[in-house]
Amino acid sequence: MASRMLVNGVASEVVSAADRGFSYGDGLFESIRFVGESAPLWDRHMQRLADSCRRLQLPLPDTAQLLRESRQVRDAMAHAVVRIAWTRGVGERGYSPPAAATPTRVVAAFPPPPMDGAVYARGVRTRLCTLRLAEQPQLAGMKHLNRLEQVLARAEWNDPAIAEGLLCDGGGRLVSATMANLFAVIDGELVTPSLQRCGVAGVARAQILARAENATERDIRLPDLQRASEVFLSSSVRGVVPVQSLDDWGWTPGPVTRQWQRHWRQLGFPMEYAA
Amino acid sequence: MASRMLVNGVASEVVSAADRGFSYGDGLFESIRFVGESAPLWDRHMQRLADSCRRLQLPLPDTAQLLRESRQVRDAMAHAVVRIAWTRGVGERGYSPPAAATPTRVVAAFPPPPMDGAVYARGVRTRLCTLRLAEQPQLAGMKHLNRLEQVLARAEWNDPAIAEGLLCDGGGRLVSATMANLFAVIDGELVTPSLQRCGVAGVARAQILARAENATERDIRLPDLQRASEVFLSSSVRGVVPVQSLDDWGWTPGPVTRQWQRHWRQLGFPMEYAA
Repeated sequence: MASRMLVNGVASEVVSAADRGFSYGDGLFESIRFVGESAPLWDRHMQRLADSCRRLQLPLPDTAQLLRESRQVRDAMAHAVVRIAWTRGVGERGYSPPAAATPTRVVAAFPPPPMDGAVYARGVRTRLCTLRLAEQPQLAGMKHLNRLEQVLARAEWNDPAIAEGLLCDGGGRLVSATMANLFAVIDGELVTPSLQRCGVAGVARAQILARAENATERDIRLPDLQRASEVFLSSSVRGVVPVQSLDDWGWTPGPVTRQWQRHWRQLGFPMEYAA
Repeated sequence: MASRMLVNGVASEVVSAADRGFSYGDGLFESIRFVGESAPLWDRHMQRLADSCRRLQLPLPDTAQLLRESRQVRDAMAHAVVRIAWTRGVGERGYSPPAAATPTRVVAAFPPPPMDGAVYARGVRTRLCTLRLAEQPQLAGMKHLNRLEQVLARAEWNDPAIAEGLLCDGGGRLVSATMANLFAVIDGELVTPSLQRCGVAGVARAQILARAENATERDIRLPDLQRASEVFLSSSVRGVVPVQSLDDWGWTPGPVTRQWQRHWRQLGFPMEYAA
C-alpha cells in the first residue's frame, strides 16, 4: 500500500522535535478534499497558502510538488482529505525566525469524515460557544498552526447530537463555527462575517463569495442571525451544510442553501460519504 | 556523551507528525535555567505547568520524572536551559481533544544564551513593537505552544543592538517584552502589567511578586512608563536585566533593579555567562 504520509517528500511519520511548527505553531496548514485524483478547490487552497506565507514571511511552496505529493498519498482512495502542513522548519531555540528558513512540509491523506445524507437534507444542530475569539488582525484569515482557541471551543461540548459550535469575538460579533465558515440570508441578502479581526477565511467561503451574484462580508450579531431566513456552514471538507438550530433557535434550509449545495455537486463533490 | 533530548523518556530527536503539539500548538512548554544540578525556580515552573494543564484540561505531568529527565539531559553541563514541552499527544485529525489523552513530553538541554556583564550593569536597548497582542483571557498567562504573535513581533527588527521589543495589547496597555516580563518603578512603587487578558506570566515575575514587600500588578500605559524611574525585564533564562532605552526614551538602572539583581545572585544564578 502507498504511504499515507510524506515528510519533505519521504515516507515518514515523524518530524524533528526542534521544528518550529512543534515549538511555536510557526506554520500553516490546508485540509483539501479529494474526489479521486481531483481536488476541485485546489487553486484556492494554494492561493490562501501563498498569501499566508507572504504575511508570515515564510518561503513559498512549490505547488506542483504539493499536488504531486497529495496525489501520491491519496493513491487509490476514492475519497480523501489531504492535510498539508507547511512550517518554518527546524530552528534554534528562540522566537526570532531564521533569516533563511528551510520549511518542513507534511502531506498526509485521511479518509473524510462520514457524512450522512440527512445532514445535507435537514442540517445540523449547533451551540453557541462560551469562548470568544481574540482579535488579532495580523493573524486573521490565515489557517495557521496556532489553534488552541479552536481546541478549547471544541472541548466545550461532547454531545454527539451537536455537530458544531458558533463563535463570536470579544465584541459579540459572529465569526465562524469551530471548523467551518458561516453564511446567513438576512433580509434576502447572503452575508458572511467579516474576518478582518479573527477567524479563518475558508476556501469554500472564498468560492461562494467569488461565485455569488451579491454576497456581502460584514459584521453580524446574534440578533441579526435570529431573524435570518437561512443559515448554513461552508467547509472545504464537508461542503455546504444547513444549520438546523443554534441552541433554542431554529431554521429550515431554504432556496439559497440548496443553490449552493447544487453548486457543490456541480464542482464534483459528493453530498454524502459513508466511511 | 549524554543525549541532550528525550522524547517520552527515550533518547530521540523526533516526534510524531500527528502530535497535536505539531498540528495545533496544543500544549505547553517551560524553559528552565539550570546551574549545575540545581534549578532554583523549579517549583515555580512546575506550579505554572500544573496550573496551565488544569486550564487546558491536559493530564498533569509527573514532576519527579521531569526533574530526573531534566538532570539527565543537562548531564555535565555547568550551565543549561532545559526546555520541557508537554503536549496533548498524538490525536486524530480534528480539534476535538481525545477524552483520554496520552501527553508527549520532550525534555531537551541547550547552552544558555551568552550574557555579557555589561548587559546587567548598564541594561539593554529595546523598541516598541507594532504588533498588538490579542486579548484572550482563556489563554492569558500560560506558556502555551501558540506563539505566532511572539514570532511576528520578534521578526519586526534585526538590529543586533536592540535586545528586546516591548508589546502592548489592542487597548494600548503594556504587556511584556517578546520573551521577558516587564517591571517599572513608578512614583516609587514597583509595578508590572496585569496579565489577565494576554501575555505569559513568567516564573521570574512570580518570584519577584512573591518576594517583594509591595509590588503591584496593574494596567500600565506608555506615558506611565515614560515617567518611571527604573525599568527592568525579568526572565527565567536571563534573570533581571535593566532596560536602558525604549526607542528614544532612556532610564538608568536604580536601586530597585539592583536589589532584584542581588536577589537573583542569592538564588544562585550567575549574572554573566559566556558561551
